[in-house]
Amino acid sequence: MIKIGILGYGNLGRGVEAAVKKNADMELVAVYTRRDPASLTINTPGVPVKSTSELDTGKEPIDVLVICGGSATDLPKMTPKYAAMYNVIDSFDTHANIPAHFDNVDKAAKEAGKVGVISCGWDPGMFSLNRVYASSVLPHGKDYTFWGKGVSQGHSDAVRRIEGVLDCRQYTVPVAAAIERVKNGENPELTTREKHTRECFVVAEEGADLARIENEIKTMPNYFADYDTTVHFISAEEMKANHSGLPHGGAVLYSGTTSDGTNHVIEYRLTLDSNPEFTGSVLIAYARAAARLNSEGVCGAKTVLDIAPAYLSAQDGAYLRAHLL
Amino acid sequence: MIKIGILGYGNLGRGVEAAVKKNADMELVAVYTRRDPASLTINTPGVPVKSTSELDTGKEPIDVLVICGGSATDLPKMTPKYAAMYNVIDSFDTHANIPAHFDNVDKAAKEAGKVGVISCGWDPGMFSLNRVYASSVLPHGKDYTFWGKGVSQGHSDAVRRIEGVLDCRQYTVPVAAAIERVKNGENPELTTREKHTRECFVVAEEGADLARIENEIKTMPNYFADYDTTVHFISAEEMKANHSGLPHGGAVLYSGTTSDGTNHVIEYRLTLDSNPEFTGSVLIAYARAAARLNSEGVCGAKTVLDIAPAYLSAQDGAYLRAHLL
Repeated sequence: MIKIGILGYGNLGRGVEAAVKKNADMELVAVYTRRDPASLTINTPGVPVKSTSELDTGKEPIDVLVICGGSATDLPKMTPKYAAMYNVIDSFDTHANIPAHFDNVDKAAKEAGKVGVISCGWDPGMFSLNRVYASSVLPHGKDYTFWGKGVSQGHSDAVRRIEGVLDCRQYTVPVAAAIERVKNGENPELTTREKHTRECFVVAEEGADLARIENEIKTMPNYFADYDTTVHFISAEEMKANHSGLPHGGAVLYSGTTSDGTNHVIEYRLTLDSNPEFTGSVLIAYARAAARLNSEGVCGAKTVLDIAPAYLSAQDGAYLRAHLL
Repeated sequence: MIKIGILGYGNLGRGVEAAVKKNADMELVAVYTRRDPASLTINTPGVPVKSTSELDTGKEPIDVLVICGGSATDLPKMTPKYAAMYNVIDSFDTHANIPAHFDNVDKAAKEAGKVGVISCGWDPGMFSLNRVYASSVLPHGKDYTFWGKGVSQGHSDAVRRIEGVLDCRQYTVPVAAAIERVKNGENPELTTREKHTRECFVVAEEGADLARIENEIKTMPNYFADYDTTVHFISAEEMKANHSGLPHGGAVLYSGTTSDGTNHVIEYRLTLDSNPEFTGSVLIAYARAAARLNSEGVCGAKTVLDIAPAYLSAQDGAYLRAHLL
């Protein structure tokens, strides 16, 4: 059994917990929290909730620690810290800072003789795999990543910070016409606005100035100004009834040529009922790989690009060759 | 530069040749043939055509030999033979015999200190990768592979052997309704007949009994009897004008759950203008991996499941992390 610890019990931590239950060779040993452990009840009966101070001893009986923190401030500190004690895995997704994060985790993990898998999930993660496979097979080509339709938690949070907004769910929606152009082999140059639209469902305070809220959303730099955005004001009841899930997904499309006039399109598409449960499932598959690699003497930082697919499977190589190759 | 030799110059050999031209770190050193080398003109000026007897010396100046033979009789002999002398790669696709082929190549390659990549292409190959990634991430699920629309050379050849048939092109066509059921998360049990139909374009001899030919096709065991098959009789001119390409493709669909009522669908789809050129491109990406692995001291048989994605790319790890992760 591979012994898993989860650090952080938000949406992603619960997604990892659900994934552990679906893998017969995995065992959840503990959930670690910065909160008072007594205040937290988890979904797996019999598994202890512990303080991160116990983790800090470096002596917890876990094979892999799945770090479910935020990319902005948690993971840059937590992942190198715990890579010095345990095999670790995270879903660090601030693309611009991945090289520095990789180096920090690599140094800590190598000194400790541990494996640290970073930036794991679906993007970065499964989508990255598909960008690399496609561009390696067809070096004369171009990749396109479309996200959605799905809930962007970062954009939802940004709207919630506007005065007069009680709640918001923001959906990122890919533009179907843009996808069709790529699939037709047109190799279009697409602007940000041409690739995605944004749709906001907003619960406003009673008497709030809806026109002002709508304008503040649509003109918000970085988040909305470069997109065509639709704003719907709804009731708290409707929010709860129709927008309580966290579906997501998207597609990596790659169009490339092998000779004059000979084009190929590769499409990888995810349609996910629950973003955190799927992300948690990817983390758990790579947690298995981390444990195995470390048991073979491998150490240092790794990404999905550095790990052979067979390491993810609970089945051995002979089974995979006979049944899935 | 990675020095590539191609053994066999049929459709696939020419596809590999086209792929080498698209990769700046690759160089075609020679094409090897069992025919009289003087009888063969290749598409790359200045590159010699040599007899396989020269290859048999074990002294040819190549980093990887791409073996473009048939799975029925060529590859089971050729790949182990040449794995004892060179790094090799093949597209062996007789699924039932992959374990034995792997063992034979593994023994020869290990004794020689070489790498032998077997069963590379898109199925087995890219499709296998997607079956393994998907089932590892979502162990509670089911995979579905659909082929086409595309030309099956094996089925086309089978029809050509019928008396009175001058030429045939057989298209394998996936059933759209079956794909929709999978994408809807229904997890259907699908029979062979429900997944694909077959469409034959046949040029018959003048005066041939068309009804007999059609009946012989539709009732042919293994190839057609289990499918709904449509037969069109066309002229040789129409065959040449409309059916001279070798397009293919298909999709691996995977539907899996992470908790009660929470389902996810993963779709990997290829739409290929040229089956041999795409297959050749996959072989060349894995030839790069074979050369690199061997330069690191790795030897033995490998499949796409055993090779980390970063080995396929001409870019280094730091570039991939900064730009594609």
